[in-house]
Amino acid sequence: MNSSARDSAFMRACRREPTDFTPIWLMRQAGRYMREYRELRARVSFLDLCKSPDLVAEVTVHAVERIGADAAIIFADLLLIIEPLGRKLEYVKGDGPRITPPVRTGADVDSLREMDADSLAYVYEAVKATRAALPSHLPLIGFAGAPFTVGSYLVEGGPSRHLENIKGMMYRDPGAWHALADRLARATIPYLNRQIEAGADAVQIFDSWVGCLSPRDYREFVLPHSKTLIDGITPGTPVLHFGTDTTTLLPLMKEAGGDVIGLDWRVELDEAWEHLGYDVAVQGNLDPVTLFAEPEFIRQQARRILDQAGGRPGHIFNLGHGILQHTPVENVIALVDAVHELSAR
Amino acid sequence: MNSSARDSAFMRACRREPTDFTPIWLMRQAGRYMREYRELRARVSFLDLCKSPDLVAEVTVHAVERIGADAAIIFADLLLIIEPLGRKLEYVKGDGPRITPPVRTGADVDSLREMDADSLAYVYEAVKATRAALPSHLPLIGFAGAPFTVGSYLVEGGPSRHLENIKGMMYRDPGAWHALADRLARATIPYLNRQIEAGADAVQIFDSWVGCLSPRDYREFVLPHSKTLIDGITPGTPVLHFGTDTTTLLPLMKEAGGDVIGLDWRVELDEAWEHLGYDVAVQGNLDPVTLFAEPEFIRQQARRILDQAGGRPGHIFNLGHGILQHTPVENVIALVDAVHELSAR
Repeated sequence: MNSSARDSAFMRACRREPTDFTPIWLMRQAGRYMREYRELRARVSFLDLCKSPDLVAEVTVHAVERIGADAAIIFADLLLIIEPLGRKLEYVKGDGPRITPPVRTGADVDSLREMDADSLAYVYEAVKATRAALPSHLPLIGFAGAPFTVGSYLVEGGPSRHLENIKGMMYRDPGAWHALADRLARATIPYLNRQIEAGADAVQIFDSWVGCLSPRDYREFVLPHSKTLIDGITPGTPVLHFGTDTTTLLPLMKEAGGDVIGLDWRVELDEAWEHLGYDVAVQGNLDPVTLFAEPEFIRQQARRILDQAGGRPGHIFNLGHGILQHTPVENVIALVDAVHELSAR
Repeated sequence: MNSSARDSAFMRACRREPTDFTPIWLMRQAGRYMREYRELRARVSFLDLCKSPDLVAEVTVHAVERIGADAAIIFADLLLIIEPLGRKLEYVKGDGPRITPPVRTGADVDSLREMDADSLAYVYEAVKATRAALPSHLPLIGFAGAPFTVGSYLVEGGPSRHLENIKGMMYRDPGAWHALADRLARATIPYLNRQIEAGADAVQIFDSWVGCLSPRDYREFVLPHSKTLIDGITPGTPVLHFGTDTTTLLPLMKEAGGDVIGLDWRVELDEAWEHLGYDVAVQGNLDPVTLFAEPEFIRQQARRILDQAGGRPGHIFNLGHGILQHTPVENVIALVDAVHELSAR
């Protein structure tokens, strides 16, 4: 690992060490809200972009520098792992990702291919190219989807409002679900470790849809598999464990693992952190819609969250979910500046 | 009010009086999962159905009798109030409701028509016809959308994943939002009271989308208006106050008002009730997807929730959200039967 990045505020916060200011990065900081990204995407499809290491490096580095964030996150997608597992992945304009055929039965689970981590070499190349292009003091975050969230796409065949097929599988055929989740967890371990080998300083596990589950279902159907995944990650690499709608799941997510637990805006950061315990760092938790307001309002909200964190080591500022498409880029910059200024110690 | 319905298990539970068994009804119990409903809808559009008191009575009474529930809920829609406020309401196949033009500014709010409660006379006629057709021991629930949820449709112009326009209005122009929410609250009071006059024994306030808000935003932007509405409801009529994703909002929803607070499956019923306090009744909280599982699993989950309620007066069994479209009707009946059998005291 890059020694300068290792001492950055972001990495120190992951380890709950004191920092001179509160580090901030934003989920989906490289994305459609940014004009330069939209211009690139007018020429290159989403999947082709993900598979072009030089373009990924360009997009990733440009975003972090443009907004002045304290960490870069590799431009990629939760679902890239779908192809090596033997399912077709397409992005349908207006409808989002489509996975065919969906995985609905135990036989479907058996039909998945064994993961060959080399088949995602383009991601590791992208991490390498990004690490090389990124200023040495800036840490680079690798990432993957958690078994539940990737599984939900595989089972539903795409985005789903009620996630009735995956929950239905859990309730009707728990053996099939556990087999699927175990395969996903084990496939994701080498995928993340190869990103780390290629230069990722930390990794984030996105369990974006897990908040549709009851705490009971999380404990039974999700926790063991997220734990398998997180336990398999190269020791010494900070793991950020993220979900939304997770108010009642937070202690269970901590039990599954991770150095940093993501919080969304439905919880108050101070209450959630106290409830989780201060032996874990937290990340969050501004409502992304706040970035549609005036800079003065954004600044007030940044101050409120920083006050709730109380300068305690181990807070990484972020949104509670990704930047929304129509967010004005100048408001994102205003947030980053406000967090730096208001948290300077 | 019908005296026999007044002594029903459902009404007694609303008042936290002891009952011989735990009453159950299910949100969207009259709906697309039922063959008879689909057959009717093949002949009549959704809005035409809502505006035909005799058909509403038929659909409402058929559903409660078919599944053996302990309360009927008038077949209607949260958005019927949109038309008398001077906006166009359509249902677009596959996309759901569309409201034109949306309400985005203070001037848009001013352009809304003053509510004339008579313009929803067809709803009161439907309540009257349903009350007449319903066995006298079965209570009838009237309902309306809460100011936030109806407001979110008005501002977004339809369903919205991130609700960025309505939150944006709150953050950028709180005066416009408060003016809109106040108008919605005041328009909804006579709408509900006329349903009560026409024979509704209890009313449910649906704040279905409120779970996208932080507790702080709920307190500032929603609570005062939900309270205005609930305070205006004819005294003596039980009010059920429902939302989803509301784990952190529950105490604030109680503060806004209601005799019964709805719980979704993201919280454990026992913990949520203890946290709310036993001076309020609770309704819930089975995950609707459970109804896709085998009857034996459904029965286990019913038992679990009944055990959590512990036979304490003031529990109404329900789902955490509406019945999903593809739910097998025999599983719904299996749930109702299981709740009756397992809760018999």
